[in-house]
Amino acid sequence: MYNPDIESASISEKRELQLIGLKKTVENVYENVGFYKQKFDELQIKPKDIRSLEDIKKLPFTKKKDFRDQYPYGLFAIPVDDVARIHGSSGTSGKPTIVGYSERDLKNWGILVARAIVAAGGRKSDVFHNAYGYGLFTGGLGLHQGADELGVATIPISGGNTERQITVINDLKPRGICGTPSYVLSIIEKMEELGMDPRDTNLDYGIFGAEAWSEEIRLKLENKLGIKAVDIYGLSEIMGPGVASECHEAQDGLHIADDHFFVEVINPDTLEPVADGELGELVFTSLQKEALPVIRYRTGDIASITHEKCKCGRTTTRMSRVKGRTDDMIIVRGVNVFPSEIERELLQIEGLSPVYQIQLIRKGVMDAIELHIEIEISLYEQVGCDLLHESIMNMKRKIQHKLKNSCLISVDVVCNAPKALPRSEGKATRVVDKRNSSPVSV
Amino acid sequence: MYNPDIESASISEKRELQLIGLKKTVENVYENVGFYKQKFDELQIKPKDIRSLEDIKKLPFTKKKDFRDQYPYGLFAIPVDDVARIHGSSGTSGKPTIVGYSERDLKNWGILVARAIVAAGGRKSDVFHNAYGYGLFTGGLGLHQGADELGVATIPISGGNTERQITVINDLKPRGICGTPSYVLSIIEKMEELGMDPRDTNLDYGIFGAEAWSEEIRLKLENKLGIKAVDIYGLSEIMGPGVASECHEAQDGLHIADDHFFVEVINPDTLEPVADGELGELVFTSLQKEALPVIRYRTGDIASITHEKCKCGRTTTRMSRVKGRTDDMIIVRGVNVFPSEIERELLQIEGLSPVYQIQLIRKGVMDAIELHIEIEISLYEQVGCDLLHESIMNMKRKIQHKLKNSCLISVDVVCNAPKALPRSEGKATRVVDKRNSSPVSV
Repeated sequence: MYNPDIESASISEKRELQLIGLKKTVENVYENVGFYKQKFDELQIKPKDIRSLEDIKKLPFTKKKDFRDQYPYGLFAIPVDDVARIHGSSGTSGKPTIVGYSERDLKNWGILVARAIVAAGGRKSDVFHNAYGYGLFTGGLGLHQGADELGVATIPISGGNTERQITVINDLKPRGICGTPSYVLSIIEKMEELGMDPRDTNLDYGIFGAEAWSEEIRLKLENKLGIKAVDIYGLSEIMGPGVASECHEAQDGLHIADDHFFVEVINPDTLEPVADGELGELVFTSLQKEALPVIRYRTGDIASITHEKCKCGRTTTRMSRVKGRTDDMIIVRGVNVFPSEIERELLQIEGLSPVYQIQLIRKGVMDAIELHIEIEISLYEQVGCDLLHESIMNMKRKIQHKLKNSCLISVDVVCNAPKALPRSEGKATRVVDKRNSSPVSV
Repeated sequence: MYNPDIESASISEKRELQLIGLKKTVENVYENVGFYKQKFDELQIKPKDIRSLEDIKKLPFTKKKDFRDQYPYGLFAIPVDDVARIHGSSGTSGKPTIVGYSERDLKNWGILVARAIVAAGGRKSDVFHNAYGYGLFTGGLGLHQGADELGVATIPISGGNTERQITVINDLKPRGICGTPSYVLSIIEKMEELGMDPRDTNLDYGIFGAEAWSEEIRLKLENKLGIKAVDIYGLSEIMGPGVASECHEAQDGLHIADDHFFVEVINPDTLEPVADGELGELVFTSLQKEALPVIRYRTGDIASITHEKCKCGRTTTRMSRVKGRTDDMIIVRGVNVFPSEIERELLQIEGLSPVYQIQLIRKGVMDAIELHIEIEISLYEQVGCDLLHESIMNMKRKIQHKLKNSCLISVDVVCNAPKALPRSEGKATRVVDKRNSSPVSV
């Protein structure tokens, strides 16, 4: 562990720390952020009303929309003069969502990502290949700062230029790699295309995130590269990557850095808490941030949490993989389904590439799902490049059957030749809405 | 000044420091880098033979080719386990040139770039827009680390997505900007296209480099944006940006960080030193680097130096702008010319956009230069979009005349409509060699 004292602290110690952080944060936002002052006043709450962790329920939620409304600096708790870094993510309004960090915030971010790299199996002596995109996006520089904090030899290669990524992996022999799962799969695919065996690299572990992925993708990444693959979670409104991350020992849920972030899971409709193990929307309150403290931020990410101790010895609250987002849940003819559920079923089928696309289309007056899959080159050759071959037709029927059974949805399956679907160099686009004048949900 | 003690140290103090650094570096490479051990042995030099700064002349040169031959880690003086960062630049052989940094090297790099930002007029309280590309290239992360060291609010926007750059400049109100001159000119052009006045931003100063540029481009940048524009110099083999940089007080040559890098200027043919003020090839020896110390690295960059004190109070050796590279000097029919000389003449002509391209073509058996220029929209409208208009023909004749007089070359001038030439999002491509089977020089 990078910070064994805190990562394996007793629950009571942790809760004490959390309460101190919560009180300080509440005072800070009340004093320094007009937006929160007004919200608190409307609810007739004063900082002194927060006496226990349970009192957090009295506090107002913060939403993505609040970041938009307060754009660019309205939620900052320190003067811009004292800000040390600005990041952003693309927003739906065309303007990026802007977030800021003090010097101490940056230091803490580095420490939390260093914890994540160590949890993944990383060591100070490693060469570390960072294929996340660098820029306003928190992925690249977030992992970069953790790597700097730990003291590994970081290769800040960023995303794109896949052949060069392969040259660097072969020649500089990194032991660790990080990036989006879909982009690292593209690298693997390119290696195979070039006649290389991806297991021949020096890679031992990989840290993947910034998009929802599944156990099946994990198996692909682990088997193809011969590595341990772990999940990292974060979002810029809270900090960036490092809010939570898996340990390589158990790979059993992501350890939330709960000395920095207090987590709740709520029912997104009733806003009431759900029980441990039950899916709901993740809500975070920052406990140590200076530049941009956030109170009960509704992430839109669907997951569950557990307070059971992990076999790795860490005592943190753990969260499940993110199963989807409240706003990317597909609702077709009254049935809710997350792309990740479709992915899980798909990737169990032999002969399929891990690249797929879910297209929402309109069929007459009805909405429908067209699932675009892609077969692997070996199967393609086996069927004589005939996508209407009997075994392809059988595969398509099998997929329809599985999805009907497990997700309760009917889909049309369109089978594509190898490499026919677009590849990502960053976050993969899994859902494409092709309904022209689509209502919000159907 | 960021480090006033050292930046304004007396010459004798500086030379004392330099000698200590030189001796340490020579011992370090002799002990830890097989390549240098062998070179020293061939020349029958021992570290103890270096007793004064003048003794540097006994040492062997290092060339770009040596980096290629020792790829990837052969020139490193510390084990890869202790390396904290790897950067690279694209090499001609297809493999990148790989360079490495220890933790202390990274700290020093940050300090030198912080000096450069302060010399440009930057302050800790600034918002700072970094439009250099982030990645293996040292430009983006080099400026980033200096900005972090100084404590400004860095916007790590990287290159590309010009409209978003403009949104960020308008909304986040940076006081400082950095990037390649050609890319920032593209941003300005886009602003004008969108009907904005580039002088309306909050920008006060800009730091530009990573490609050769001229006084005329400086005037464009300064007038269009209403800023002070300064030049920054560096190359990854030595460290990255921050090896030298201009002060905003004098804008009269770049202050070399000569407590870290010992500079020589040589005649690239005879390898003999040239006098102060005379153009020659820059040669640097690192004095404090741990991971990748370099002895007498021949940069290929053509400039002159002066030891006169600058009016800003800094006592460092100063270098002129880089006038070109030993290997991009164009030799046509026996005449040597640098693209920067052509640029200087071009940009004095009213009605021309700052985007141009020098194409080397073959005319029968002879090599020739085709100079592609682009006119500004106002002139284009004035001549009724007629590129054969009398005033365009006059302009072309004027350019030919000027270049014949000042550079002794004959060129064909091809005039293009506004925005017809390709824009850069990083380093501009000024010279395109279209000769099919070209000899090395003609």
